[in-house]
Amino acid sequence: MSPRQKSPRHGPDVVLPNSYNDLKFTQIQTRHHDKEPSVIILTLHRPNNHNAFTDKMREEIEAAYGMFNVDDRVKCIVVTGSGRIFCAGADLDIGFGSGTAGEEAEAVQDHRDGDNDDRGGRVTLSIFHCRKPTIGALQGSAVGIGITMTLPMNIRIAYKSAKIGFVFSRRGLIMEACSSFFLPRLIGHSRAMAATTTGSTYLASDKIWGGLFTELCERPEDVLPKALEVAEDVVRNTSSVSTYLMKELMFRDKGSPEGQHLLDSRVIFELFGSPDNTEGVQSFLEKRPAKFTGTLEGANVTGYPWWMPLDILGRPKVAPTGKAKI
Amino acid sequence: MSPRQKSPRHGPDVVLPNSYNDLKFTQIQTRHHDKEPSVIILTLHRPNNHNAFTDKMREEIEAAYGMFNVDDRVKCIVVTGSGRIFCAGADLDIGFGSGTAGEEAEAVQDHRDGDNDDRGGRVTLSIFHCRKPTIGALQGSAVGIGITMTLPMNIRIAYKSAKIGFVFSRRGLIMEACSSFFLPRLIGHSRAMAATTTGSTYLASDKIWGGLFTELCERPEDVLPKALEVAEDVVRNTSSVSTYLMKELMFRDKGSPEGQHLLDSRVIFELFGSPDNTEGVQSFLEKRPAKFTGTLEGANVTGYPWWMPLDILGRPKVAPTGKAKI
Amino acid sequence: MSPRQKSPRHGPDVVLPNSYNDLKFTQIQTRHHDKEPSVIILTLHRPNNHNAFTDKMREEIEAAYGMFNVDDRVKCIVVTGSGRIFCAGADLDIGFGSGTAGEEAEAVQDHRDGDNDDRGGRVTLSIFHCRKPTIGALQGSAVGIGITMTLPMNIRIAYKSAKIGFVFSRRGLIMEACSSFFLPRLIGHSRAMAATTTGSTYLASDKIWGGLFTELCERPEDVLPKALEVAEDVVRNTSSVSTYLMKELMFRDKGSPEGQHLLDSRVIFELFGSPDNTEGVQSFLEKRPAKFTGTLEGANVTGYPWWMPLDILGRPKVAPTGKAKI
Repeated sequence: MSPRQKSPRHGPDVVLPNSYNDLKFTQIQTRHHDKEPSVIILTLHRPNNHNAFTDKMREEIEAAYGMFNVDDRVKCIVVTGSGRIFCAGADLDIGFGSGTAGEEAEAVQDHRDGDNDDRGGRVTLSIFHCRKPTIGALQGSAVGIGITMTLPMNIRIAYKSAKIGFVFSRRGLIMEACSSFFLPRLIGHSRAMAATTTGSTYLASDKIWGGLFTELCERPEDVLPKALEVAEDVVRNTSSVSTYLMKELMFRDKGSPEGQHLLDSRVIFELFGSPDNTEGVQSFLEKRPAKFTGTLEGANVTGYPWWMPLDILGRPKVAPTGKAKI
Repeated sequence: MSPRQKSPRHGPDVVLPNSYNDLKFTQIQTRHHDKEPSVIILTLHRPNNHNAFTDKMREEIEAAYGMFNVDDRVKCIVVTGSGRIFCAGADLDIGFGSGTAGEEAEAVQDHRDGDNDDRGGRVTLSIFHCRKPTIGALQGSAVGIGITMTLPMNIRIAYKSAKIGFVFSRRGLIMEACSSFFLPRLIGHSRAMAATTTGSTYLASDKIWGGLFTELCERPEDVLPKALEVAEDVVRNTSSVSTYLMKELMFRDKGSPEGQHLLDSRVIFELFGSPDNTEGVQSFLEKRPAKFTGTLEGANVTGYPWWMPLDILGRPKVAPTGKAKI
Repeated sequence: MSPRQKSPRHGPDVVLPNSYNDLKFTQIQTRHHDKEPSVIILTLHRPNNHNAFTDKMREEIEAAYGMFNVDDRVKCIVVTGSGRIFCAGADLDIGFGSGTAGEEAEAVQDHRDGDNDDRGGRVTLSIFHCRKPTIGALQGSAVGIGITMTLPMNIRIAYKSAKIGFVFSRRGLIMEACSSFFLPRLIGHSRAMAATTTGSTYLASDKIWGGLFTELCERPEDVLPKALEVAEDVVRNTSSVSTYLMKELMFRDKGSPEGQHLLDSRVIFELFGSPDNTEGVQSFLEKRPAKFTGTLEGANVTGYPWWMPLDILGRPKVAPTGKAKI
């Protein structure tokens, strides 16, 4: 396994499980989709707390995504929540205000003592950096980090009456977890400004969300099955190498059509004849399902990454060598 | 009052009125919303001229926004028009073509003699730079500068049959007032290209506008009340510091998710425990309305501004020291 | 004819035809619109091959656009397809997989031997660089390059049941032809990510496309007439100089409202009193149709181009002097 296969956060420490059904997380759950085991279902799981976000949950999502990223058996991730709520946001009983100590505490001083970064952003980036696509299955309401963590996902499917809110202006905070980067790009600045200015919650079916949700389901219980259906299609018919590179091309473009032409010409040239390209074209011409097995390493895209990666590991205390590892 | 509280254009000269009802403007009107005096209603007021834009109107809007920006009593601004039209665009009878002289003249040579900038852009920027959110209440048609001046606003609400037009290609001009920056960001390049290519007017309800208008009203007379209702909610339940910083985060982002993570981590870290954050969380936990009193100065966000401000004051003649003042 | 009137690719070699009806292309057809000869109809024409894209077709589209760009008689281009399909994508029978040789071959090695660029991107850029607006008339399905070539167009009109697909992930490739630049800008990253992740085809009327199509027609045969109707309006009522400059302003902006204000102030200042501005305002005041005759040269916008053009001509073998020619 080459160093490039390591997850940026968990690099040397990633130990892959025999089965994702066996992992012992406490605030999330992971399991293989029975019908298509290369699809992993990650469930936010604090059912007595509306799946409110804690630093423990952050740690577990990051650990899971560290594995997904480098595990060739994993082709797609579906993220959903236990119970009626997808995620009620940061656990305010713990993190702010009263500053309760305890096992789950995401105390404000953590932000000061540690690497001084926003916990939500670490989750967002672990999803964004993962080489396998993620589909959000919002079976219920999502506010604050509950919705911002879904923004780097490839596809979001929601229960039509789920309440969605960027409530930061009502808490005297700002939008976090890179959502000021993602939200206006996803749905445009007009909708993003309106939603963040009022800080209200709106139904997932409200037109304020524009194309944020690819699909809206009539009933909460329809959301996960629908997401799994899309995931099955994705793992059976698409190359995750293609999808990952297209995500990077769209979010890290060269700023002009000409610059992008030079870049995409180079990348596509290197992909011609790659295992996934050969299989994709052959299966199409033979009118049969494809079997994509390619990896980013196998594709050998020499120009990748084409941008200058930023060091997001923060203080020397956390990353003693001070070298960018992303 | 610290220098940072000054409006960039009007800095040392801003004198705040006892009441915005007392101000003697000639082409606009300002007044406090009776029900919620921290909401100011600014009305474009040239009723015999369809509220067509002049340099005098520009001067008055800039002066008013210079006050709003630094007046802690002002929490939200609602902009509307007198009569049936919101704003019919630049007053062509005055500014172009015949070049009529007179008190209201926005003669072409003004653009040459002065600081050589576009008047519409000065209005747009005074709205964009204001630390309090603005809601556009388009009770009637808006073309040219009539619509471009609304683009930096946080929210736009319109009469569904108002005619909206980016008519520049029909006048042999280009879109002005920074609208080539704002429009594609607000509604995407596809809609923006179509609307500017034809230069036609379309009803506010036309799908070409996508999410440009948060709400469409059945009748012209419903628009201002609806906008005031949203404004009341905004001033009672949200922190203007939060909203202003989120606007800046979204329009002046760092260009990558990682860069934005470093930035938003820093800003949110500094807001933890700020007066508005404390009040926002406490009021939420106590299930009571919040009382936000914070200011940008009070929030003490040391990293602000995180971008390099541009000097938009133009020629030395206007800004003798040649220093950036924005 | 000044050097700036030359097309970047075809500069010294452009010979304009007496009539576009006379040109002898083999995989496209060009003709004047009878009712309004300044509108040119370009038809993708490989009726027995679903108008699948070949390198020959690329060469012909580039040649035609090289003429349109510098021909003052041409005011607007409408692009459509022969038969039931707009364009079925790259001709896989020729270009990939089997590597069949032959007259039409777009063999993979062409990408290696030549200037190492993506053929689709050359078409996209020839449309994007053209100073006259293009309207896409998608009378049938468009996949792969069939849809990516339409992204730089000003307006797209489609048959509502045309199948549209960014199918790259299903072929083990990436989106090409600068579409990773254009698509997220046109419809937002949320829709763009969803469409490219699944790689599925969706009806033109599917909400996944958001504002990609300005208009959807009930029947295939309604599409071209509708596009021609829009084109007639465009050539009769708008200045192509305005439209071209606005496209550049929107796609090559300065990255901040203030920077864009400085730029658009300069451009609009220089346009005041230009032939098209004078005619546009006069005709408006006189309530008569306008007659726009302006050219970019005539408008004399001294700040154009305001960005640093990139050399996209590739290797020295192709462009011996190594100088940027765009």
